[in-house]
Amino acid sequence: MSEFKVVPGGVCAPKGFSASGVHAGIRHNPGKLDLAIIKAEVRCAAAGVFTTNKVYGAPIKVDRAHLADGYAQAIVVNSGNANTCAANGVALATQCCELTAKALGIDAADVLPASTGVIGQPMVIDPFEKGIPEAAAQLEATAHGSNQAAKAIMTTDTYEKEYAIEFTLGGKTCRMGAIGKGSGMIAPNMATMLAFYTTDAAVSPALLQKALRTVVPTTYNQMSVDLDTSTNDTLLLLASGLAGNEPVTEEGPDYEAFLAALYAVAGHMCALHASDGEGATHLITCEVTHAPSHEIARAIAKSVVCSNLFKAAVFGRDANWGRILCAIGYTPGDFSIDHVAVRIASAAGEVHVCENAAYHPFSEEEAANILAEHDILVKVDMGDGEADGKAWGCDLTYDYVKINGDYRT
Amino acid sequence: MSEFKVVPGGVCAPKGFSASGVHAGIRHNPGKLDLAIIKAEVRCAAAGVFTTNKVYGAPIKVDRAHLADGYAQAIVVNSGNANTCAANGVALATQCCELTAKALGIDAADVLPASTGVIGQPMVIDPFEKGIPEAAAQLEATAHGSNQAAKAIMTTDTYEKEYAIEFTLGGKTCRMGAIGKGSGMIAPNMATMLAFYTTDAAVSPALLQKALRTVVPTTYNQMSVDLDTSTNDTLLLLASGLAGNEPVTEEGPDYEAFLAALYAVAGHMCALHASDGEGATHLITCEVTHAPSHEIARAIAKSVVCSNLFKAAVFGRDANWGRILCAIGYTPGDFSIDHVAVRIASAAGEVHVCENAAYHPFSEEEAANILAEHDILVKVDMGDGEADGKAWGCDLTYDYVKINGDYRT
Repeated sequence: MSEFKVVPGGVCAPKGFSASGVHAGIRHNPGKLDLAIIKAEVRCAAAGVFTTNKVYGAPIKVDRAHLADGYAQAIVVNSGNANTCAANGVALATQCCELTAKALGIDAADVLPASTGVIGQPMVIDPFEKGIPEAAAQLEATAHGSNQAAKAIMTTDTYEKEYAIEFTLGGKTCRMGAIGKGSGMIAPNMATMLAFYTTDAAVSPALLQKALRTVVPTTYNQMSVDLDTSTNDTLLLLASGLAGNEPVTEEGPDYEAFLAALYAVAGHMCALHASDGEGATHLITCEVTHAPSHEIARAIAKSVVCSNLFKAAVFGRDANWGRILCAIGYTPGDFSIDHVAVRIASAAGEVHVCENAAYHPFSEEEAANILAEHDILVKVDMGDGEADGKAWGCDLTYDYVKINGDYRT
Repeated sequence: MSEFKVVPGGVCAPKGFSASGVHAGIRHNPGKLDLAIIKAEVRCAAAGVFTTNKVYGAPIKVDRAHLADGYAQAIVVNSGNANTCAANGVALATQCCELTAKALGIDAADVLPASTGVIGQPMVIDPFEKGIPEAAAQLEATAHGSNQAAKAIMTTDTYEKEYAIEFTLGGKTCRMGAIGKGSGMIAPNMATMLAFYTTDAAVSPALLQKALRTVVPTTYNQMSVDLDTSTNDTLLLLASGLAGNEPVTEEGPDYEAFLAALYAVAGHMCALHASDGEGATHLITCEVTHAPSHEIARAIAKSVVCSNLFKAAVFGRDANWGRILCAIGYTPGDFSIDHVAVRIASAAGEVHVCENAAYHPFSEEEAANILAEHDILVKVDMGDGEADGKAWGCDLTYDYVKINGDYRT
């Protein structure tokens, strides 16, 4: 993931994008930004993926309609209320698009809305009537603009999640930037919490959507904080085309190059989300190798990072590898566990804890030192094929319970 | 579940069974019993169901072989070590059967072994050589004998789990008794942690096995503490036939009566396990009605009691019904959420929090009072069919994290 040059600026790094974040009053705390706008200078090829939860936010219904033609020009997002399970939800989301379109002088059908916060809380239009014109007036094509937007979409997140890289398409330098939020109710299934990607690469809407559908199963869908698939997971990608590359309209080397850039940004964003999982003190990455298929490799990796018992053991810095084996064993699918080897690694070293599904002698002291680091890597070698897979998660801590015992009240 | 007369005595309540529990030295703490034997006077029709985890305890392999003929006479169980992921595991489990057979004067192929505790820890035969003859010498056909055995199989459990009822088959009074253990790594899939049932009803081995397979999917498989399906889940049922009923050898009214008794014991045992979930301060039962199929009703009920977010909300006594809707929505299956109604109830009352998948006005104060009780019932009416389903779980607390951050060390 380090093959690309990292650049500052988040969603404003690619050509043609500005962003802002303001306090509209959806949240009570006046110090907390709660409304963000991302605007493109031009109409963009646009793609999105959304939650598979049967209970889903009203903005998602509007997004699907507004994405039908493959183009969009702005994104409007609020935190503090998920606009989900409300009888007037679609009407409210539609009004938000109209307010945004008016403030920006664009078509309401080119605005994509998103919401995050408490589910089932009544929502009113008033703060949007005040906040949207303010956010429109404060749009900046700068790192500060992206950062304000990243701040405004946070809920229980403890830091802003932004990333941008440079890549080359047909000899032209392109950029891709992203902001994201989400730290609890994280077990994306098709897309994720909220993530907004921008790029100045010229890519057709159909290929943009195909690229998202290709990258999401191996990145966002492989991340879990708590196995609770949100009602509002949304990943939107706008491509302005202002980098000047020959438009990517069919599969081939340029599409592959774009896909690699998208994978790099998505993988990095997943690590940022999992690392900031509610109450987390550790990022847990699991890499599975030599599995019979990629599907099984990914399922095993996800099973390990989702195990409440192993997550609690990591919090306690206990190399309880039996819980890793247990999580491997209850993964659905047809595979053999006879040749499983497990290693636990971090910046402090690596211990080989299991070989052929049985105990492999290791130093508990060394293991405790390794688990004292923030970023923990679990390497699972299935010894039963050639496929690999990866997943991201975090430890289970007192603070996860505290945050979620208190969240609404 | 109250249609049967509850009787004391646990596994010793039915005719023909004795039990004991001793400290063999598998655990370091000399005050903790760690070895149990349950013995029948006669060879019994026997049945068992086991974990579906691909990584499974060595005793399970031996159980499957010893149950092949449909008969058994004794059960030997240790806590403190799961005998799982050990190269010499099957040899050790076989030796335990031989030691038990010698001490009881029965055939080693009629002994069923079980183990629970840390996975992947080296295990030796020495404590069994000392403990098995001691346990054999202390067998008692009394409530005390059952209670000692129930104590000896506990790990992080905070109380013994025992139950016995009386029922009638072909005019004869029969009894069924059970002991169980398990408070973490609880998400049974086929069977459960450890549970041992006895009955003096005469039932053929084939029908005994069929009855277990019928009852387990709607009881044990509908219970979860932490979604971690153990490597050692085992439910064994011995039927001595000493009640003198006409043997049940085919389906019909007697088989249905036996099934009802088995369901009553299994349902009660599930509530006992979930209520004692690691760190739990609440039992959460979810009853789903008017779903399109029993499978969907059960899946929805289980999804609700498994949601980490809702479990943490119950711990915080927060009626965060949006998290119930979220968990209903990510349940796999083809169903509509448009007419969902949700009520939260306990001994303190009931609040109607959601109607047609949207907010239904309720008093937060009343809801907090209801959630102050230990036993919480979530009633979900899908308004989309005639099938119902039920599941048992518990809240997610600081102590769950503490217990599992510390368990091994």
